[in-house]
Amino acid sequence: MPQPPSTLEGAFLLHQLFRVDWTAWHDLKEKKRRRIQAESAEVLRELCSRGAGDDSGALYHVLGHKGDLMFVFSRTTAEKLAEVERQLTRLPLWPYLESTYSYFSIVELSLHGAHERYRNLLLQQGLEEHSKDWDAALEKMLEEDRQVQKARLWPEFPEDPYICFYPMDKRRGEVHNWFMLEAPDRGKLMSSHGKTGRRYANKVSQIISSSMGLDDFDWGVSLFSHDPLYFKKLIYDMRFDEVSAVYAEFGPFFIGRRIQPERLLELQPWSD
Amino acid sequence: MPQPPSTLEGAFLLHQLFRVDWTAWHDLKEKKRRRIQAESAEVLRELCSRGAGDDSGALYHVLGHKGDLMFVFSRTTAEKLAEVERQLTRLPLWPYLESTYSYFSIVELSLHGAHERYRNLLLQQGLEEHSKDWDAALEKMLEEDRQVQKARLWPEFPEDPYICFYPMDKRRGEVHNWFMLEAPDRGKLMSSHGKTGRRYANKVSQIISSSMGLDDFDWGVSLFSHDPLYFKKLIYDMRFDEVSAVYAEFGPFFIGRRIQPERLLELQPWSD
Amino acid sequence: MPQPPSTLEGAFLLHQLFRVDWTAWHDLKEKKRRRIQAESAEVLRELCSRGAGDDSGALYHVLGHKGDLMFVFSRTTAEKLAEVERQLTRLPLWPYLESTYSYFSIVELSLHGAHERYRNLLLQQGLEEHSKDWDAALEKMLEEDRQVQKARLWPEFPEDPYICFYPMDKRRGEVHNWFMLEAPDRGKLMSSHGKTGRRYANKVSQIISSSMGLDDFDWGVSLFSHDPLYFKKLIYDMRFDEVSAVYAEFGPFFIGRRIQPERLLELQPWSD
Amino acid sequence: MPQPPSTLEGAFLLHQLFRVDWTAWHDLKEKKRRRIQAESAEVLRELCSRGAGDDSGALYHVLGHKGDLMFVFSRTTAEKLAEVERQLTRLPLWPYLESTYSYFSIVELSLHGAHERYRNLLLQQGLEEHSKDWDAALEKMLEEDRQVQKARLWPEFPEDPYICFYPMDKRRGEVHNWFMLEAPDRGKLMSSHGKTGRRYANKVSQIISSSMGLDDFDWGVSLFSHDPLYFKKLIYDMRFDEVSAVYAEFGPFFIGRRIQPERLLELQPWSD
Amino acid sequence: MPQPPSTLEGAFLLHQLFRVDWTAWHDLKEKKRRRIQAESAEVLRELCSRGAGDDSGALYHVLGHKGDLMFVFSRTTAEKLAEVERQLTRLPLWPYLESTYSYFSIVELSLHGAHERYRNLLLQQGLEEHSKDWDAALEKMLEEDRQVQKARLWPEFPEDPYICFYPMDKRRGEVHNWFMLEAPDRGKLMSSHGKTGRRYANKVSQIISSSMGLDDFDWGVSLFSHDPLYFKKLIYDMRFDEVSAVYAEFGPFFIGRRIQPERLLELQPWSD
Repeated sequence: MPQPPSTLEGAFLLHQLFRVDWTAWHDLKEKKRRRIQAESAEVLRELCSRGAGDDSGALYHVLGHKGDLMFVFSRTTAEKLAEVERQLTRLPLWPYLESTYSYFSIVELSLHGAHERYRNLLLQQGLEEHSKDWDAALEKMLEEDRQVQKARLWPEFPEDPYICFYPMDKRRGEVHNWFMLEAPDRGKLMSSHGKTGRRYANKVSQIISSSMGLDDFDWGVSLFSHDPLYFKKLIYDMRFDEVSAVYAEFGPFFIGRRIQPERLLELQPWSD
Repeated sequence: MPQPPSTLEGAFLLHQLFRVDWTAWHDLKEKKRRRIQAESAEVLRELCSRGAGDDSGALYHVLGHKGDLMFVFSRTTAEKLAEVERQLTRLPLWPYLESTYSYFSIVELSLHGAHERYRNLLLQQGLEEHSKDWDAALEKMLEEDRQVQKARLWPEFPEDPYICFYPMDKRRGEVHNWFMLEAPDRGKLMSSHGKTGRRYANKVSQIISSSMGLDDFDWGVSLFSHDPLYFKKLIYDMRFDEVSAVYAEFGPFFIGRRIQPERLLELQPWSD
Repeated sequence: MPQPPSTLEGAFLLHQLFRVDWTAWHDLKEKKRRRIQAESAEVLRELCSRGAGDDSGALYHVLGHKGDLMFVFSRTTAEKLAEVERQLTRLPLWPYLESTYSYFSIVELSLHGAHERYRNLLLQQGLEEHSKDWDAALEKMLEEDRQVQKARLWPEFPEDPYICFYPMDKRRGEVHNWFMLEAPDRGKLMSSHGKTGRRYANKVSQIISSSMGLDDFDWGVSLFSHDPLYFKKLIYDMRFDEVSAVYAEFGPFFIGRRIQPERLLELQPWSD
Repeated sequence: MPQPPSTLEGAFLLHQLFRVDWTAWHDLKEKKRRRIQAESAEVLRELCSRGAGDDSGALYHVLGHKGDLMFVFSRTTAEKLAEVERQLTRLPLWPYLESTYSYFSIVELSLHGAHERYRNLLLQQGLEEHSKDWDAALEKMLEEDRQVQKARLWPEFPEDPYICFYPMDKRRGEVHNWFMLEAPDRGKLMSSHGKTGRRYANKVSQIISSSMGLDDFDWGVSLFSHDPLYFKKLIYDMRFDEVSAVYAEFGPFFIGRRIQPERLLELQPWSD
Repeated sequence: MPQPPSTLEGAFLLHQLFRVDWTAWHDLKEKKRRRIQAESAEVLRELCSRGAGDDSGALYHVLGHKGDLMFVFSRTTAEKLAEVERQLTRLPLWPYLESTYSYFSIVELSLHGAHERYRNLLLQQGLEEHSKDWDAALEKMLEEDRQVQKARLWPEFPEDPYICFYPMDKRRGEVHNWFMLEAPDRGKLMSSHGKTGRRYANKVSQIISSSMGLDDFDWGVSLFSHDPLYFKKLIYDMRFDEVSAVYAEFGPFFIGRRIQPERLLELQPWSD
């Protein structure tokens, strides 16, 4: 039976999509609009700030009809995300928002590739595979990695002006089934996929989160760039990697333009 | 022709998802909100209490846009669940709720694995398989099991702060068809699947309910834990079991945070 | 080319699902509610009564969010069903109902199995298969059957407290295609399926209606029982019949509790 | 590579489905209802009349929840259909209608079968296949056919009381792909299918329209009969034709009862 | 591993579908309607004008219930499209519009076919394939092409009265997978597909845009013609090309009739 990959988990993420009732919003007197905008911005700025608890958050204008705004929050516990959700319902501009989508997931680092390295280190220590000692030693190594990779597990959202978020599955088809592949085969496919990604290293950064048992797809992918052209180029190139060509099944794509809390509902809210 | 598994059935379950009209709710005067909250809590507490009839119930804050609240009720008859549904329509906070999903099912214990034990016991009694006497003796043994397993058939919902609920099918694909597998093959796959589950025995508990003929999927799965991280880890590990990798088809996933009736619509309803 | 089965057709059926606007309903003064309930009950009782025209009807409370009420009407012509639809729009409680689903079909008795008997009888009469005389003789025999089976073709809805309604298709997959099977093979599969059904003969009764050319699935299935547990057991057992395991594709399932017209919107409309 | 069939195109069709706000409608004073009904009928009668331009139109009561009314309009240009759409928005009863579905297509006569006849005629004239002369001669023959078949290309909607409308695709599966079959094989399958249809020649008439590049399915099928029983019988029989069994993929089915413009919203608008 | 095709990218496109609240619109006094229409037209005319920045835009009446209006905008950056979206929310007629669909994509020219030519030119220069020099020389050639093809990369929308817009995928099935084909095989299929297209060169023009990583399908196709009959004929013919027959998966089709901004909501806005 194929072995599941070892993974490290970090922050819980919540992506939220909203439509704005622009007619009701523009019907307000300018003074009231400014007050609502200002008071809401104060709360949102606080919810997006890093603070002591490795929190993070970012707000976006969404292109197209799937929503007008996207909020993304990162917290160390699910409970804190639930608290954010309840706080948003008290936001002065909440009555002008309608929830259209959301995604709940947890940041995940997969040890594909690294896997082999750990195995070799443990074998060198003379440990028996899958024994209690083996597991304890592996756990210790993983814990050290967790410290090293803290910035990747509880990430701040990059400052890039554009986000591309989409949930995705790995195919479990009747012919091609990712979860029936042996770990080394999965590793090779992911490693080749990673090479395509690295060609865009200075153009696109990513946060991968897992949502198995948490939401309707297996993973969430959040890409960040200064121009959505690179989302198109990256996804197009990757589509020809065997792992995407054969095994990727995509949910909806959401494209957002970063927006400052205090200019959330202005006409051109991103111009400095 | 493959034999269907013997099963024991217990309580009828109703999972209900609701959205809250937060704007209308926050528009109420605080005094009225408190009165509605208190009066509704009284009814809900009663509906969730165990009582004499093996009833049970639990309330949750839902993460994401699929709903704001999840109610889960367990009753010994379908009629009692229907009565709960009608009673909810008289709840003072009903006008602030909108129904977004529900799931109707019945708690089921499968005798996969145990199956073989029964068969051996009956053969030792010199009974002829599938004869009238065989059926009567099997029925008697099952009835005794039912008594033993009462707590599992009419369960109370665990106190854990988190629930993960999802409906699922076993695949009936053109190549891979669970219901065309012979009983012993199904038993082996389920037994291996059970081993993965037992690795999470002290982290996650579960209630399995069947919804064939009752709702749109074959089964409902309700998992309970103190941290949704374990839902992710459990489902991820199980995804590599052949029974999940090849045969599982999942409906939507709902994640809830337990909430006390009297703090149902507060900002941080679970603190202290 | 496979031969289509000979069928007998009876009453047209309309299944209708409604949500109730409970908030608006409970906002009414009790006196008005009682008047609306009473006046509506009078019309509904008339629409459900057998009368001279082989009409029938029944009303149900629906479990879960797919609707609050299900109305099922049987008429000898489509025109009479359309008239029922228009009459319902004048019902005093119509403004409190919202249509969520419906299903239009015609009661169908299939001559699977019987088919062979007819063929043999006609061959004994020395008739040439598919000749004009053969067709006329077959038509005559079918007509006689129609008289015999009148109660099954224009059925009254059973008094059982529970209904399970679901539409379904027979699979036309790329590998398994029901409609490419030869008639004798289909007959054998249906006959084995029928045996499973007969094990529930005193627990569950059924009305099978065809909706090819009338609605979005091939057939509608209406099951009736005194406890929904038996819907679960019957469907579970049948799922392992090859005809269901391989060829059945199910639409949504609707479960209803019978309700008397004059207690349609009461809290416990079925008690006493 | 398989050759596409030669086709003749005629009128553009628009099928429109509407729900009626019966509560608002019945709330009107009878006098106002009668005025709205009368004024709307006048416009609708005009829109449905044949006139000089080969126009046609028909109105139906729809069975079930997919709509309350279906309007079907036929025009010689798309522009005229767009004009009809805009005119409907000025209809006095427009505020009581909600659009639930529509279908845009163009009447199509396929030259399957006839194809061969043309080819033979052209070969007899000593023309070289696919040459410029060949194409011109073929075009001329088709043009003559178009004149002959004018009544089929710009049809009036039959007076029959019942319509069955559904959109459909020909399957492009991974195993069975209609569009990869060679023309003669497609021709044979369609010819056998046609035979089934002709058995219902005096019971059911049809208008076939193509919607490739115009709407979401490949074709629209409009059947007309004096009893929807024949829709069921025809579709059931055809389902066993290989072309339907293997290649047909059906969209939603809509069943309507013909209704006169001036009795559109009456209780029993079709009587006398 | 198959090589992704080289592509050139141009303008970002946003297709937007809207429903009109005709009842509210016709309820306005004529004077107000005319003022709203005139003021909105002024803004829309500006948004559709070419200007200095290679911008473009066009407005359409939509046939059927998927929308009443379609706006299509072309901009050199995503940011400018987002600005258009925000500006539209201030349009005087915005309160009468409801967003029903949208599509975000980027104009793409594929070098299928041309690919081979480039490769030959580079080999003649004695360059080593996939070397740094090779890449630089290829980039330079592409850049020159970009200049030549500017009108195709930042196109103005043709004046044709009709548009046909649909998103589409190339199939990634379990048997047939476009992205696992080698580049020369894809090239041959596309080249044969192109021949079918060129037969309609004087009847239909097209803009192909890619939406991988930007929206839910792989590509958007915008066809323009003086009669939607040619959309039907073109798509029908192409359906028999192997690339469409086997690999094309289509999203919804939207058909629009060009409309001038100042006559957007008139009864027959295109007759002038």
